[in-house]
Amino acid sequence: MNSSAQFCLINGQLVPIATAAIGVNDLSLQRGYGIFDFFKVVGGKPVFLDDHLERFLFSAKEMRLDKGLTTGLLTGQVQMLLEKNDLPESGVRLTLTGGYSPDGYSLANPNLVVTQTPVTLNRGLPPGIELMTYPFQRQLPRVKTIDYLMAIWLQPTIRQNQANDVLYKSEGVVRECPRANFFIINNKGELQTTREKLLWGITRKKVLEIAGKFLPVAEKDITVADLAQSREAFITSTTKHITPVIAIDGQKIGPGEPGELTRLLSEGLLHQVFADY
Amino acid sequence: MNSSAQFCLINGQLVPIATAAIGVNDLSLQRGYGIFDFFKVVGGKPVFLDDHLERFLFSAKEMRLDKGLTTGLLTGQVQMLLEKNDLPESGVRLTLTGGYSPDGYSLANPNLVVTQTPVTLNRGLPPGIELMTYPFQRQLPRVKTIDYLMAIWLQPTIRQNQANDVLYKSEGVVRECPRANFFIINNKGELQTTREKLLWGITRKKVLEIAGKFLPVAEKDITVADLAQSREAFITSTTKHITPVIAIDGQKIGPGEPGELTRLLSEGLLHQVFADY
Repeated sequence: MNSSAQFCLINGQLVPIATAAIGVNDLSLQRGYGIFDFFKVVGGKPVFLDDHLERFLFSAKEMRLDKGLTTGLLTGQVQMLLEKNDLPESGVRLTLTGGYSPDGYSLANPNLVVTQTPVTLNRGLPPGIELMTYPFQRQLPRVKTIDYLMAIWLQPTIRQNQANDVLYKSEGVVRECPRANFFIINNKGELQTTREKLLWGITRKKVLEIAGKFLPVAEKDITVADLAQSREAFITSTTKHITPVIAIDGQKIGPGEPGELTRLLSEGLLHQVFADY
Repeated sequence: MNSSAQFCLINGQLVPIATAAIGVNDLSLQRGYGIFDFFKVVGGKPVFLDDHLERFLFSAKEMRLDKGLTTGLLTGQVQMLLEKNDLPESGVRLTLTGGYSPDGYSLANPNLVVTQTPVTLNRGLPPGIELMTYPFQRQLPRVKTIDYLMAIWLQPTIRQNQANDVLYKSEGVVRECPRANFFIINNKGELQTTREKLLWGITRKKVLEIAGKFLPVAEKDITVADLAQSREAFITSTTKHITPVIAIDGQKIGPGEPGELTRLLSEGLLHQVFADY
């Protein structure tokens, strides 16, 4: 089922993945300039596609890369790629770069690359993970840029700290993990997640909607001090769905095991993701 | 003389520039992860090559990309490319990326790309330019990463402000331009340049050496407040050499024209760059 994709799309053209390449003058390689989005495909169907394409176009516009792209055009390209590769469960990444810049600095015609890869999707509640906090603020945080420089640079540090991932903090506020949003159940029993200076994940949005039906929800700054008072914590992402967080910087969250509300929210999310398939 | 280069090097192999490409799984395109350096070639000879290669290897090491690279190996590759392209005056860029990552996130075998392009080198003191300040702190500032996301994103803002370039500031301190270092002649007549949280340019280093022979030099924080008191200001880079700054955020520096010490330093630098050729 999950063999590799044979094809990707470069500027709307199907290209065998083995030869898919971007010229060395592209501004991604030259200047790290680009945006992307990533969604999952379950049972051959894209999940939350409209949300992802809307965010992709938002990112493109913010980065001045939105020349002529529409959700219709992108949906058509995605359908073509899905049919060609025929992978029932996968992740699709749309990447838009600054293009082939004559002077290596000014924006050119963006290059659009659509790739599909096998993914492993959490289908239940995974074991709890441990995070370490690190002082960092992503630049242009509402935009899904390709800038993961700090995230990748920190990987050995995360291992040294025996953590599973890093949680960025700035101005005393906990923001996000490099590829996931962060939530707590605070000491009032509310679901709380920071709103500002971070990427608004699609799974984050779905979890806020689901939680709104049965929990008080507070979309406001989680301070570093709030962590010690938290009853539960978890992260959200397109592939991880809800993953419990049981310790941060070596300090247990609540009793140090996945919480009941985390479990309930996970069930609600997984129901939405997998129900139709 | 300055026709385009016909060849570049990818992982030590000469490749026609028209077909030179990097696979779409490379961590530069996927995650903006890479470093580079850039030096000029005058009369067919690299200028300050050892300084540039030393900094390139420093950047590689800091970013955990330094597998097996040496100045000897890099010098050999550079020589091969220079001979093949036969361009007397040009810029050479060495780029080292995170490589083809199987999971799109973990570091892989770095890809080394060496390209050569025609450049225009300042041979005298160019007209003064105007800068606008902008609050920003580069991540991993001592490393010459490929992260120019903010610099490119700010280009329309710079034009709107009728400035020629942006000068980053953080914590009340003036740091650097995206591709140049910044100096002032302060109100005591000292040459002053910020030392911390910025890239240590090779031209910056040469100017500090030259200035040390006839001027008091203060390598310490230039605060935003210091700007109004400055007698002269200029920026330095590999291609711009010394370029006078005559206004910042619409406020004149000194009398609003290139200063005498700026001119003297420029002569000293240009002598070093061009004397042997």
